[in-house]
Amino acid sequence: MQEHKYVTYGNTCSCGCDASETSRQITGCRFSISEMSDDYISLILGAISKVDTSKVWSKTDKISTVYRGKQNHVEDAVKACFINAYNENVHATMECTFSKGCPGDVESDSFLAEDDVLMNEPKIKDKHFPVVSKISLYPLGVSDYMTHIATIVNHAIDLGIYSGSTHYCTMLECDVQDLFSYINYVNDYCGKNIKHYVFEVTLSVNSPTK
Amino acid sequence: MQEHKYVTYGNTCSCGCDASETSRQITGCRFSISEMSDDYISLILGAISKVDTSKVWSKTDKISTVYRGKQNHVEDAVKACFINAYNENVHATMECTFSKGCPGDVESDSFLAEDDVLMNEPKIKDKHFPVVSKISLYPLGVSDYMTHIATIVNHAIDLGIYSGSTHYCTMLECDVQDLFSYINYVNDYCGKNIKHYVFEVTLSVNSPTK
Repeated sequence: MQEHKYVTYGNTCSCGCDASETSRQITGCRFSISEMSDDYISLILGAISKVDTSKVWSKTDKISTVYRGKQNHVEDAVKACFINAYNENVHATMECTFSKGCPGDVESDSFLAEDDVLMNEPKIKDKHFPVVSKISLYPLGVSDYMTHIATIVNHAIDLGIYSGSTHYCTMLECDVQDLFSYINYVNDYCGKNIKHYVFEVTLSVNSPTK
Repeated sequence: MQEHKYVTYGNTCSCGCDASETSRQITGCRFSISEMSDDYISLILGAISKVDTSKVWSKTDKISTVYRGKQNHVEDAVKACFINAYNENVHATMECTFSKGCPGDVESDSFLAEDDVLMNEPKIKDKHFPVVSKISLYPLGVSDYMTHIATIVNHAIDLGIYSGSTHYCTMLECDVQDLFSYINYVNDYCGKNIKHYVFEVTLSVNSPTK
């Protein structure tokens, strides 16, 4: 009979927590860019290669790219990649999974000992274009998760970027700069209030659907 | 001062649950197809239009399409859409969010009173092509969520479709038929064992990255 090597998660502590304090400080974002164009290879690889990733750990696989490190540098690199990928004649999307605090996380594959000087922001802070996005927050391991979700959705309403609630997600419509400011707010809020969370954001530009 | 209309979720019961028994039976899937081709509009809309959606509730918005109804019919429609979207010369991805049991869910926007005869399966059951995918399961509101995640990942290992664990997701590589059989297993498992879950699956075909 064949023997399989199985995974085990969160089984070293009765509370389900086996992540170290250091690994709990790592923010990560896994994302996939899609360019609806015959030139998708050069558009996607061009966008990724132009990002200054010197302050994040980065890896691109068959289906996505992941950045890991301090929250501000991860957000800076993701924002740069999305803005680099923008072409006014091409419909493009980016699916992002931000996460922090996974009990199965490890200390490796990350740079945390960095200062707070953002590497990409000076080059991208004046770029503006409209983005349609859908967001979903998943606070894990807590019973009051719907309250956290309502908090971040209501903040989007306060900011005037909320365009509606629908099944399984919330829709936002705003300028790219405002969207990444909001993503920063959500990661700040979750980092302070939720031990382990996943924040899914799908961004879309130049969709032919009005 | 401007007055905003805020959202409230799960606040009619101290346990965070205000969904009715009927709404708890609704499985939903929100998905977005991306075709890396200048012909993306006809490829995407062609795929969606060919699906027999007579046994699910369906709505397409600016960024995604959602199907809601009985689990088997939702899975049948999503599988048909993905297989319809396949073109051997085009790199394409589909981001899917399966979910069931959200406390904020409503009974509307769904058809549940249907038999179990699948509308699309006879036309797609003999289609075969390789798919690379990443999956993430989010059981909400429970402290033992990592155990559920390990269970479904270990089942993928048993099936021989597991290709590795990486940050924030698990990778699978297999034939399209085996992948949708596995998605059916996960939705079955979660429906029986988890009150509210979200199962994220991103599928990729014909990627130039080997």
